[in-house]
Amino acid sequence: MATKLIGENRRPFICTPVVGVTTETIVEELEQVLAKKPDIIEWRADFFQHIADTVQVLAVANRIKEIAGELPIIFTIRSIREGGQPIPLSDREAIELNAEICRNTTVEYVDCELSNDPAYIQYLRAEATSHGTKIIGSFHNFALTPSRDELAKKFTAAEQFGLDVAKVAVMPQDLDDVLRLLGATLEAKKRLSIPLITMSMGKYGAISRMLGGVFGSSLSFAVGAKASAPGQIPIEDLQTVLDIVEKTIGE
Amino acid sequence: MATKLIGENRRPFICTPVVGVTTETIVEELEQVLAKKPDIIEWRADFFQHIADTVQVLAVANRIKEIAGELPIIFTIRSIREGGQPIPLSDREAIELNAEICRNTTVEYVDCELSNDPAYIQYLRAEATSHGTKIIGSFHNFALTPSRDELAKKFTAAEQFGLDVAKVAVMPQDLDDVLRLLGATLEAKKRLSIPLITMSMGKYGAISRMLGGVFGSSLSFAVGAKASAPGQIPIEDLQTVLDIVEKTIGE
Repeated sequence: MATKLIGENRRPFICTPVVGVTTETIVEELEQVLAKKPDIIEWRADFFQHIADTVQVLAVANRIKEIAGELPIIFTIRSIREGGQPIPLSDREAIELNAEICRNTTVEYVDCELSNDPAYIQYLRAEATSHGTKIIGSFHNFALTPSRDELAKKFTAAEQFGLDVAKVAVMPQDLDDVLRLLGATLEAKKRLSIPLITMSMGKYGAISRMLGGVFGSSLSFAVGAKASAPGQIPIEDLQTVLDIVEKTIGE
Repeated sequence: MATKLIGENRRPFICTPVVGVTTETIVEELEQVLAKKPDIIEWRADFFQHIADTVQVLAVANRIKEIAGELPIIFTIRSIREGGQPIPLSDREAIELNAEICRNTTVEYVDCELSNDPAYIQYLRAEATSHGTKIIGSFHNFALTPSRDELAKKFTAAEQFGLDVAKVAVMPQDLDDVLRLLGATLEAKKRLSIPLITMSMGKYGAISRMLGGVFGSSLSFAVGAKASAPGQIPIEDLQTVLDIVEKTIGE
């Protein structure tokens, strides 16, 4: 089977995060997760103890690619500002590590936070493009769900930077916030030409993890071994709900 | 087990409709449906060939009650204006038949459309109250989803008439309409003291049949043997989704 990319799927991809701290636990977790048949894997490299050692990071990325085979991989350094682990890299160094991934591995996607200096985003985009790597332009808010307008601007920014996918993950304070995220997704899906990944986090947001696909989200995170954000549900449960949603609503 | 009433349930009731034309097919369908373990049954009496014969209607209602045991029953004559079958009864005669059900059976609920003459609704309410029967005040629109304000007025009307449950079933023209129905449900749930039954119909509306409980709907219709409205999903699928939603979001 050829690697399928985000947005080529009619049914949303299920992405399982890998959050190990050592090479050994990363590989172990990856093997557990692969047994559950996700569509794509996100390596959250900000959890890796040797994140500051480019050679080791590249070695792990290549090892993951080798084990995962045709399954696409997202390489992600989530900043502490957007819910990631504390790491000893500056934003500039993190961007450079992403560029190294583009140059030296066959990882399909790197994540780039839209809150980065625009010059960094443009630099990474040029590097990614010349090496055939795609970029997910991401925005996270673990405290609240911004207004409809603010959400629309995030989606637009990803497209305007020429990135390949727009990701928005926000925390609802109530169920109205979950509805707003779904409505903003629907609107962005009609307006933009790049695929979207959206989710409302936490307990109530789990609804959006189950049904976001109907509103235009091309990917949903689910737990294979360990969760990487609040509200992620087990991959088996997400598969079951997506089966029923597809049977009921399918296009 | 004692009969549980709508609104006493934390998890939404699953209601399966019975739409047989003859006494025999009604009983057959009821037995099929009961095997699938719904929480409540709606007898759609407008499908019954002898709807104009009060004695026969009462006999069937008592027969249903006898077979269903502790399971609560909703007696419903859906008017042709609100998506029901053509029947030879005037609105006034339909109300009188509902009153006979209150007087002569132990059926727990009768359905009364809010579009009825207010004097009829008040009359049925008095009859129902004196016989311990509860009334679901209902509104259906099979063409579209009214504005947020219009939806709010329907919920309010049911409470102002002193009815026991407010039901709103509307057709979405797009996914924004489904979000509006869910938002209106959430708002009404906070504002009113009576239980709500809400749903968006058709293919996209199926989302609300799965997740309406999270937004404040106390009951969802699912197919046991035959559907009574567009978008109803099989009871087994609804059970599965409600299990996962409860496990994930439960209070």
